Amino acid sequence: MSETRADVELDFGDDGLIPAVAQDADTGEILMLAYATREAVDRTRETDRAHYYSRSRDELWEKGASSGHVQHVEEILVDCDGDAIVYRIEQEGGACHTGFDSCFHRTIDGEIIGEKVFDPESVYE
Amino acid sequence: MSETRADVELDFGDDGLIPAVAQDADTGEILMLAYATREAVDRTRETDRAHYYSRSRDELWEKGASSGHVQHVEEILVDCDGDAIVYRIEQEGGACHTGFDSCFHRTIDGEIIGEKVFDPESVYE
Repeated sequence: MSETRADVELDFGDDGLIPAVAQDADTGEILMLAYATREAVDRTRETDRAHYYSRSRDELWEKGASSGHVQHVEEILVDCDGDAIVYRIEQEGGACHTGFDSCFHRTIDGEIIGEKVFDPESVYE
Repeated sequence: MSETRADVELDFGDDGLIPAVAQDADTGEILMLAYATREAVDRTRETDRAHYYSRSRDELWEKGASSGHVQHVEEILVDCDGDAIVYRIEQEGGACHTGFDSCFHRTIDGEIIGEKVFDPESVYE
């Protein structure tokens, strides 16, 4: 995790972004899906903390930089085509800005299956 | 899983696609990431078999229709923004066309961590 260049070739597509899935390294739970640039992947490898690219804010984004809910990256996996990655992480606090442990805390039928682990009003001002 | 319309609103973006992560419902292993259209999600809910949209072939794609490696969908999860989904599945055969159980069978350093579960030459002619 100390190198700044990927040894496996990554395909960042036409928009320079690759989907990155954050997965709890211990439980296997899928916590969130966001997008990463080459710079975000490099910063993740340099720091072992998950970095993404915020499409709404149009900037490099270290998860937890403001909330404290950082993601310690144990391993990065790459798929067969090189156009998707998985960050296997240890999550501090909760991954979702709504206070749930995972952004995927509901089914398509609307049933809540996730666990609320923090009060978003006390974290995001 | 019998309804044809999602109860949770999904955001298919400008291109009509939503990223869909297939996860082994038993082990939590992430098997693949592909894209789904509204039609693919509807077909998945109608049949309980994972459907995606093939961007390369530009068509609706039932996973395993030719290989037999179908994905039985137990549950569909939606993230907080409604712009990513998880198919929690039981995989027949292997998810990856290269013969591995998962498309995410290697680390970014190039180390192979996945398990080869079938010979692709005997499946894809």
